[in-house]
Amino acid sequence: MSLDAIPIQVVHTTPPGEPGLTGNAPPLLRELLEQVERLLETGVPSAIDLSALPLTPADMDWLRNALGPGEIDVTLDANGESTLSETGCPGVWWITHRNEQGAVTSQFLEVTFVPELVKAHPQDVAMGRETLERLLADL
Amino acid sequence: MSLDAIPIQVVHTTPPGEPGLTGNAPPLLRELLEQVERLLETGVPSAIDLSALPLTPADMDWLRNALGPGEIDVTLDANGESTLSETGCPGVWWITHRNEQGAVTSQFLEVTFVPELVKAHPQDVAMGRETLERLLADL
Repeated sequence: MSLDAIPIQVVHTTPPGEPGLTGNAPPLLRELLEQVERLLETGVPSAIDLSALPLTPADMDWLRNALGPGEIDVTLDANGESTLSETGCPGVWWITHRNEQGAVTSQFLEVTFVPELVKAHPQDVAMGRETLERLLADL
Repeated sequence: MSLDAIPIQVVHTTPPGEPGLTGNAPPLLRELLEQVERLLETGVPSAIDLSALPLTPADMDWLRNALGPGEIDVTLDANGESTLSETGCPGVWWITHRNEQGAVTSQFLEVTFVPELVKAHPQDVAMGRETLERLLADL
Protein backbone atom coordinates (compact mmCIF):
# COMPACT_ATOMS: atom_id res chain seq x y z
CA MET A 1 0.00 0.00 0.00
CA SER A 2 1.39 3.40 -0.95
CA LEU A 3 1.37 6.34 1.43
CA ASP A 4 -1.14 8.06 -0.89
CA ALA A 5 -3.80 5.60 0.21
CA ILE A 6 -3.70 6.71 3.86
CA PRO A 7 -5.97 9.79 3.59
CA ILE A 8 -8.68 7.61 2.04
CA GLN A 9 -8.59 5.35 5.09
CA VAL A 10 -9.07 8.41 7.30
CA VAL A 11 -12.14 9.63 5.37
CA HIS A 12 -13.83 6.25 5.02
CA THR A 13 -13.85 4.51 8.39
CA THR A 14 -14.98 1.38 6.55
CA PRO A 15 -12.71 1.12 3.49
CA PRO A 16 -14.29 -0.20 0.28
CA GLY A 17 -14.20 -3.98 0.29
CA GLU A 18 -14.89 -4.23 4.02
CA PRO A 19 -17.70 -6.54 5.19
CA GLY A 20 -21.14 -5.00 4.87
CA LEU A 21 -20.38 -2.67 1.97
CA THR A 22 -22.56 -3.49 -1.03
CA GLY A 23 -21.20 -0.89 -3.45
CA ASN A 24 -24.62 0.77 -3.55
CA ALA A 25 -23.49 3.94 -1.77
CA PRO A 26 -20.85 5.43 -4.14
CA PRO A 27 -23.30 5.87 -7.08
CA LEU A 28 -25.40 8.08 -4.78
CA LEU A 29 -22.61 10.66 -4.84
CA ARG A 30 -23.11 11.03 -8.63
CA GLU A 31 -26.87 11.33 -8.09
CA LEU A 32 -26.24 14.01 -5.44
CA LEU A 33 -23.91 15.90 -7.78
CA GLU A 34 -26.66 16.02 -10.42
CA GLN A 35 -29.18 17.19 -7.83
CA VAL A 36 -26.81 19.89 -6.54
CA GLU A 37 -26.22 21.09 -10.11
CA ARG A 38 -30.00 21.25 -10.65
CA LEU A 39 -30.43 23.20 -7.40
CA LEU A 40 -27.81 25.74 -8.46
CA GLU A 41 -29.19 26.11 -11.98
CA THR A 42 -32.94 26.06 -11.34
CA GLY A 43 -33.43 26.39 -7.57
CA VAL A 44 -35.45 23.16 -7.59
CA PRO A 45 -34.82 21.01 -4.49
CA SER A 46 -34.85 17.21 -4.51
CA ALA A 47 -34.27 14.28 -2.17
CA ILE A 48 -33.06 10.70 -2.02
CA ASP A 49 -35.04 8.38 0.25
CA LEU A 50 -32.24 6.33 1.83
CA SER A 51 -34.76 4.09 3.62
CA ALA A 52 -36.09 2.91 0.24
CA LEU A 53 -32.65 1.81 -1.04
CA PRO A 54 -30.79 -1.48 -0.37
CA LEU A 55 -28.17 0.12 1.88
CA THR A 56 -26.52 -1.68 4.80
CA PRO A 57 -25.47 0.15 7.99
CA ALA A 58 -21.90 -0.01 6.63
CA ASP A 59 -23.07 1.66 3.38
CA MET A 60 -24.77 4.40 5.42
CA ASP A 61 -21.58 4.94 7.47
CA TRP A 62 -19.52 5.10 4.28
CA LEU A 63 -21.88 7.70 2.78
CA ARG A 64 -22.01 9.78 5.96
CA ASN A 65 -18.24 9.79 6.27
CA ALA A 66 -17.74 10.58 2.57
CA LEU A 67 -20.03 13.64 2.81
CA GLY A 68 -18.49 14.68 6.14
CA PRO A 69 -19.92 16.93 8.84
CA GLY A 70 -21.32 20.39 8.15
CA GLU A 71 -21.78 23.51 10.27
CA ILE A 72 -25.55 23.41 10.83
CA ASP A 73 -27.58 20.96 12.92
CA VAL A 74 -31.33 21.26 13.31
CA THR A 75 -33.45 19.42 15.85
CA LEU A 76 -37.21 19.34 15.38
CA ASP A 77 -39.26 17.89 18.20
CA ALA A 78 -42.80 17.01 17.09
CA ASN A 79 -44.20 13.49 17.66
CA GLY A 80 -40.65 12.11 17.77
CA GLU A 81 -37.37 13.86 17.09
CA SER A 82 -36.10 14.70 13.62
CA THR A 83 -32.54 15.81 12.98
CA LEU A 84 -31.61 17.78 9.88
CA SER A 85 -27.84 18.06 9.56
CA GLU A 86 -26.03 19.93 6.86
CA THR A 87 -23.27 17.71 5.48
CA GLY A 88 -19.77 18.80 4.51
CA CYS A 89 -21.32 19.52 1.08
CA PRO A 90 -23.46 22.65 1.71
CA GLY A 91 -26.92 22.23 0.20
CA VAL A 92 -26.89 18.48 0.99
CA TRP A 93 -28.75 17.73 4.25
CA TRP A 94 -28.89 14.39 6.07
CA ILE A 95 -32.37 14.04 7.57
CA THR A 96 -33.32 11.39 10.13
CA HIS A 97 -36.86 10.97 11.45
CA ARG A 98 -37.46 9.09 14.70
CA ASN A 99 -40.69 7.96 16.35
CA GLU A 100 -41.63 8.81 19.94
CA GLN A 101 -39.69 5.75 21.14
CA GLY A 102 -36.51 7.08 19.46
CA ALA A 103 -36.37 4.44 16.69
CA VAL A 104 -35.33 5.65 13.23
CA THR A 105 -38.36 5.60 10.93
CA SER A 106 -36.81 7.10 7.77
CA GLN A 107 -33.68 8.78 6.44
CA PHE A 108 -33.31 11.15 3.51
CA LEU A 109 -30.63 13.10 1.75
CA GLU A 110 -32.27 16.39 0.83
CA VAL A 111 -30.66 18.73 -1.68
CA THR A 112 -31.97 22.21 -0.93
CA PHE A 113 -30.90 25.61 0.33
CA VAL A 114 -32.96 25.03 3.47
CA PRO A 115 -35.12 22.00 4.33
CA GLU A 116 -38.83 22.73 4.14
CA LEU A 117 -39.33 21.38 7.68
CA VAL A 118 -37.21 24.18 9.19
CA LYS A 119 -39.50 26.89 7.82
CA ALA A 120 -42.33 28.22 9.95
CA HIS A 121 -45.51 27.92 7.88
CA PRO A 122 -47.83 30.95 7.58
CA GLN A 123 -50.68 29.17 9.39
CA ASP A 124 -48.31 28.47 12.32
CA VAL A 125 -47.11 32.07 12.34
CA ALA A 126 -50.77 33.15 12.46
CA MET A 127 -51.11 30.99 15.59
CA GLY A 128 -47.99 32.71 16.96
CA ARG A 129 -49.73 36.06 16.39
CA GLU A 130 -52.68 34.84 18.49
CA THR A 131 -50.31 33.71 21.25
CA LEU A 132 -48.73 37.18 21.32
CA GLU A 133 -52.15 38.85 21.40
CA ARG A 134 -53.09 36.63 24.38
CA LEU A 135 -49.82 37.45 26.18
CA LEU A 136 -50.43 41.16 25.66
CA ALA A 137 -54.02 40.90 26.91
CA ASP A 138 -52.72 39.21 30.09
CA LEU A 139 -50.16 41.91 30.91
CA MET B 1 -54.46 36.96 45.55
CA SER B 2 -57.23 35.31 43.52
CA LEU B 3 -56.84 31.84 42.04
CA ASP B 4 -56.93 33.46 38.58
CA ALA B 5 -53.48 34.90 39.18
CA ILE B 6 -51.80 31.50 39.57
CA PRO B 7 -51.34 30.69 35.85
CA ILE B 8 -49.44 33.96 35.39
CA GLN B 9 -46.96 32.91 38.07
CA VAL B 10 -46.43 29.61 36.24
CA VAL B 11 -45.67 31.29 32.89
CA HIS B 12 -43.39 34.00 34.30
CA THR B 13 -40.88 32.38 36.65
CA THR B 14 -39.97 35.90 37.76
CA PRO B 15 -43.30 37.66 38.36
CA PRO B 16 -43.49 41.39 37.50
CA GLY B 17 -42.24 43.42 40.42
CA GLU B 18 -39.45 40.96 41.31
CA PRO B 19 -35.94 42.35 41.73
CA GLY B 20 -34.12 42.86 38.45
CA LEU B 21 -37.20 43.48 36.31
CA THR B 22 -37.11 46.93 34.73
CA GLY B 23 -40.42 46.78 32.87
CA ASN B 24 -38.56 47.10 29.56
CA ALA B 25 -39.42 43.56 28.39
CA PRO B 26 -43.26 43.60 28.15
CA PRO B 27 -43.37 46.38 25.49
CA LEU B 28 -41.23 44.13 23.29
CA LEU B 29 -44.20 41.75 22.98
CA ARG B 30 -46.19 44.53 21.28
CA GLU B 31 -43.23 45.25 18.98
CA LEU B 32 -43.04 41.52 18.15
CA LEU B 33 -46.77 41.41 17.41
CA GLU B 34 -46.36 44.26 14.91
CA GLN B 35 -43.41 42.51 13.30
CA VAL B 36 -45.30 39.20 13.08
CA GLU B 37 -48.25 41.01 11.46
CA ARG B 38 -45.87 42.61 8.93
CA LEU B 39 -44.29 39.21 8.19
CA LEU B 40 -47.71 37.67 7.53
CA GLU B 41 -48.92 40.57 5.39
CA THR B 42 -45.78 41.39 3.39
CA GLY B 43 -43.31 38.54 3.97
CA VAL B 44 -40.75 41.09 5.18
CA PRO B 45 -38.62 39.76 8.08
CA SER B 46 -37.31 41.95 10.90
CA ALA B 47 -35.34 41.68 14.13
CA ILE B 48 -34.91 43.19 17.57
CA ASP B 49 -31.33 43.48 18.82
CA LEU B 50 -31.73 42.50 22.48
CA SER B 51 -28.07 43.30 23.20
CA ALA B 52 -28.69 46.94 22.28
CA LEU B 53 -31.57 47.35 24.77
CA PRO B 54 -31.41 48.09 28.54
CA LEU B 55 -32.53 44.60 29.57
CA THR B 56 -31.38 42.88 32.75
CA PRO B 57 -30.88 39.10 32.97
CA ALA B 58 -34.26 38.99 34.80
CA ASP B 59 -35.89 40.87 31.90
CA MET B 60 -34.38 38.36 29.44
CA ASP B 61 -35.67 35.44 31.54
CA TRP B 62 -39.13 37.01 31.69
CA LEU B 63 -39.18 37.48 27.90
CA ARG B 64 -37.93 33.96 27.21
CA ASN B 65 -40.52 32.43 29.54
CA ALA B 66 -43.32 34.57 28.13
CA LEU B 67 -42.55 33.43 24.56
CA GLY B 68 -42.07 29.83 25.67
CA PRO B 69 -40.19 27.02 23.94
CA GLY B 70 -40.77 26.04 20.32
CA GLU B 71 -40.24 22.85 18.33
CA ILE B 72 -37.13 23.77 16.32
CA ASP B 73 -33.56 24.29 17.57
CA VAL B 74 -30.71 25.10 15.24
CA THR B 75 -27.02 24.99 16.12
CA LEU B 76 -24.54 26.67 13.82
CA ASP B 77 -20.86 26.11 14.52
CA ALA B 78 -18.65 28.64 12.74
CA ASN B 79 -16.09 30.67 14.74
CA GLY B 80 -18.13 30.14 17.90
CA GLU B 81 -21.53 28.55 18.32
CA SER B 82 -24.80 30.23 17.42
CA THR B 83 -28.15 28.87 18.52
CA LEU B 84 -31.35 29.74 16.68
CA SER B 85 -34.38 28.53 18.60
CA GLU B 86 -37.95 28.88 17.47
CA THR B 87 -40.01 30.23 20.36
CA GLY B 88 -43.52 29.15 21.34
CA CYS B 89 -44.67 31.83 18.86
CA PRO B 90 -43.80 30.31 15.45
CA GLY B 91 -42.03 32.86 13.26
CA VAL B 92 -40.29 34.39 16.31
CA TRP B 93 -36.76 33.01 16.74
CA TRP B 94 -34.41 33.61 19.69
CA ILE B 95 -30.89 33.87 18.34
CA THR B 96 -27.77 33.78 20.51
CA HIS B 97 -24.28 34.24 19.11
CA ARG B 98 -21.25 33.08 21.13
CA ASN B 99 -17.54 33.60 20.55
CA GLU B 100 -15.02 30.74 20.42
CA GLN B 101 -14.68 30.92 24.23
CA GLY B 102 -18.43 30.35 24.60
CA ALA B 103 -19.29 33.85 25.85
CA VAL B 104 -22.51 35.40 24.53
CA THR B 105 -21.65 38.19 22.08
CA SER B 106 -25.15 39.17 20.94
CA GLN B 107 -28.80 38.14 21.16
CA PHE B 108 -31.61 38.86 18.74
CA LEU B 109 -35.29 38.15 18.35
CA GLU B 110 -35.74 37.53 14.64
CA VAL B 111 -39.22 37.53 13.09
CA THR B 112 -39.01 35.45 9.95
CA PHE B 113 -40.21 32.20 8.39
CA VAL B 114 -36.64 30.89 8.54
CA PRO B 115 -33.53 32.70 9.79
CA GLU B 116 -31.18 33.70 6.97
CA LEU B 117 -28.25 31.98 8.75
CA VAL B 118 -29.86 28.54 8.35
CA LYS B 119 -29.94 28.81 4.55
CA ALA B 120 -27.05 27.42 2.50
CA HIS B 121 -25.88 30.25 0.24
CA PRO B 122 -25.39 29.56 -3.48
CA GLN B 123 -21.64 30.17 -3.31
CA ASP B 124 -21.39 27.58 -0.50
CA VAL B 125 -23.48 25.10 -2.50
CA ALA B 126 -21.11 25.67 -5.43
CA MET B 127 -18.26 24.67 -3.08
CA GLY B 128 -20.32 21.59 -2.13
CA ARG B 129 -20.52 20.71 -5.83
CA GLU B 130 -16.71 20.85 -6.04
CA THR B 131 -16.42 18.61 -2.97
CA LEU B 132 -18.73 16.05 -4.61
CA GLU B 133 -16.73 16.21 -7.86
CA ARG B 134 -13.53 15.57 -5.87
CA LEU B 135 -15.15 12.64 -4.01
CA LEU B 136 -16.27 11.11 -7.31
CA ALA B 137 -12.83 11.57 -8.86
CA ASP B 138 -11.29 9.72 -5.88
CA LEU B 139 -13.59 6.68 -6.13
